[in-house]
Amino acid sequence: MTNENILIGSAIIGQSGGPSSVINASAYGVIKTALESEYITNVYGANHGIKGVLDDRLMDMSKEDPAELELLLHTPSSALGSCRYKIAEPEKDDTDFKRILEIFKKYNVRYFFYNGGNDSMDTCNKINRYLKSVGYECRVFGVPKTIDNDLFGTDHCPGFASAAKYIATSVMEVSRDSQVYNTGMVTIIECMGRHAGWLTAAAALAGEKGDGPDLIYLPEVDFVMEDFVRDVKRVYNEKHNCIVAVSEGVHYADGRFVSEAKTSGTDGFGHAQLGGLAARLAAVVKEELGVKVRGIELSLLQRCAAHCASATDIEESFNSGKTAVESALAGESGKMVGFRCDRTDGYRCEYVLFDLEKVANFEQKVPLEWITEDHAHVTDDFIRYCAPLIRGDLVVPMEDGLPRFAKLKKVFA
Amino acid sequence: MTNENILIGSAIIGQSGGPSSVINASAYGVIKTALESEYITNVYGANHGIKGVLDDRLMDMSKEDPAELELLLHTPSSALGSCRYKIAEPEKDDTDFKRILEIFKKYNVRYFFYNGGNDSMDTCNKINRYLKSVGYECRVFGVPKTIDNDLFGTDHCPGFASAAKYIATSVMEVSRDSQVYNTGMVTIIECMGRHAGWLTAAAALAGEKGDGPDLIYLPEVDFVMEDFVRDVKRVYNEKHNCIVAVSEGVHYADGRFVSEAKTSGTDGFGHAQLGGLAARLAAVVKEELGVKVRGIELSLLQRCAAHCASATDIEESFNSGKTAVESALAGESGKMVGFRCDRTDGYRCEYVLFDLEKVANFEQKVPLEWITEDHAHVTDDFIRYCAPLIRGDLVVPMEDGLPRFAKLKKVFA
Repeated sequence: MTNENILIGSAIIGQSGGPSSVINASAYGVIKTALESEYITNVYGANHGIKGVLDDRLMDMSKEDPAELELLLHTPSSALGSCRYKIAEPEKDDTDFKRILEIFKKYNVRYFFYNGGNDSMDTCNKINRYLKSVGYECRVFGVPKTIDNDLFGTDHCPGFASAAKYIATSVMEVSRDSQVYNTGMVTIIECMGRHAGWLTAAAALAGEKGDGPDLIYLPEVDFVMEDFVRDVKRVYNEKHNCIVAVSEGVHYADGRFVSEAKTSGTDGFGHAQLGGLAARLAAVVKEELGVKVRGIELSLLQRCAAHCASATDIEESFNSGKTAVESALAGESGKMVGFRCDRTDGYRCEYVLFDLEKVANFEQKVPLEWITEDHAHVTDDFIRYCAPLIRGDLVVPMEDGLPRFAKLKKVFA
Repeated sequence: MTNENILIGSAIIGQSGGPSSVINASAYGVIKTALESEYITNVYGANHGIKGVLDDRLMDMSKEDPAELELLLHTPSSALGSCRYKIAEPEKDDTDFKRILEIFKKYNVRYFFYNGGNDSMDTCNKINRYLKSVGYECRVFGVPKTIDNDLFGTDHCPGFASAAKYIATSVMEVSRDSQVYNTGMVTIIECMGRHAGWLTAAAALAGEKGDGPDLIYLPEVDFVMEDFVRDVKRVYNEKHNCIVAVSEGVHYADGRFVSEAKTSGTDGFGHAQLGGLAARLAAVVKEELGVKVRGIELSLLQRCAAHCASATDIEESFNSGKTAVESALAGESGKMVGFRCDRTDGYRCEYVLFDLEKVANFEQKVPLEWITEDHAHVTDDFIRYCAPLIRGDLVVPMEDGLPRFAKLKKVFA
């Protein structure tokens, strides 16, 4: 590091948006690296993301037991607390930004790391823009997290692979379970993913082991109920069994969600709260085919199943946090850490920086050419892309047969 | 073994009823021990339980790769195929029994092992009674399996602990996930168990780690909707969060299942098919409290999650199969293998035999004194009973980040 890059001050790490199994591994990458840096004077965790900054609720990370902090590698959900807070455009309403600046000055915050998905990268980008506009020197970094795998630019997102592994594992197990009787059964498994079908596509990994779904429906293409019923009927008549993986976000050609009768509430960003699709499709199949059907919604389980996380995902999540701190210390700012991967000869992952301006609010979807022509499965290209991400030997710290999660003291500054 | 106990002939192992994560560990205990015995000439797996015997579909277990057979320890669901076939009382209708005898004579079957729950023990008992009545020498053994943990006499049932571990683990993870926002949330987790609340009670194990359910509702006591709403309201007002574990089988004082609007179909034994309770209770809470609620049905996942099985359960399941064969070779018949456990100084499990006549068709429920007075949680006695069952170091055979399940050739005799 050259002298001119040296910036001395405090760091804040915040977590935002929906949690994942490994979001804390990224936070730990930031916290550990920041605590070890000679230029970072204090490391604060914002309680409930940017809301914690606005409310002056900062937790002193140096007060935590290092062994507990290390358990963050295997602790699901956002240990610092998360939020879904839509921040304004600084050019239109700078109220929140003035408050953020006030807090940053109070604690001499010169490093800001924000750990989240699309909306969080947007928040991060706006803070960066505002701080620059008022000439406050602060290095702002996005540390990506999203099981949805929909962040622009990066090969994949931390959190995706662990959810993918959980989904593939569960599909394998349910597939075995659904075949014990010779009486025939259709099983419909609903996976998360509002606009991008990455998670649902990951069910296909189970197929590599011979226990995969027969049909896969993604939100990248329009859902046609008649085609769905025809597909299920065909598979069932052939095999006397049928496993379907379907994304919560599948929609008709006019844009209506198939599950939409259930979209009663919305989250803080105005997204519809989906759910109940599996049960709905199960009812249709029962009505049309008259066979035994079961709908299974993987629900929250798929985003918090740390006991089944991908070891590769944990490593990459940690490293993305670490890289963010190291890059910030080296003088970079306004960036998000991402991955560039090479699968030509095994699998190699390189950590690269993307402009926050470019990644914010752009959703990366499953390429259409990775969806089969009948819109009811994915191609081998997807398997080649996804398979390396779930590999690695996972060792979960256990106590009495149950996972041992981090217990933070949360000492407020 | 004394000479008079020697009986030379073939053995059949069949699996029946709902599968579990470890039912194949029991089957493997039978198969391996039987294959190694000098008195057992052939080891057959009945394809789909007693239906496989009636249909003369017997698979030659000696034709399987021993390494694949060993993977049965970690392969969920019933690898031989299961059935839900209600067999008649032999004294009233002996059609099936005559056919069974015909098959037994064809293959010189002198050992019959039946791996299942309550209804399977009943089938096993009837076969034993019939064969005795016609003077056909055959040693008949029940090898217990039921995640419901409701078999009479035995301390607990193989399969229960693995489902219990999965439930406790999932509750821990969901509990963490439900607390990331400071906006408040009620989460309702529905567990299996029609008449016995063992599985739902197991959610309490998560509480020992600080991430347990606030409220637990079992079918052993009547469910009162007003009390449920009052309990949730109290917890939510106190903690701004509430985790509920509820059994699919909770019912009102008049016996109606709380989920009953959903009981459209029945299984082969005449049981109602339950499901949808979590969503129903979530709707009530939303209506009454107006807060964010999520209903999660653990569904099939809890009975097939071999990736999260209890190492103790796998060992005990294997040993119960092994003990069945050893006891049969020693001359015993008409018995079920069960467990007698001592928890006074650590945990010790002894394998004992119970008369099939006594265990068939009797459901063992959670003792009422293990349910708290307000009917909304379980006592420490339950924890002391359950905690040792989920311990042990699990090592799951993995390949490419996914479990490696047994692939049987299924060579028919």
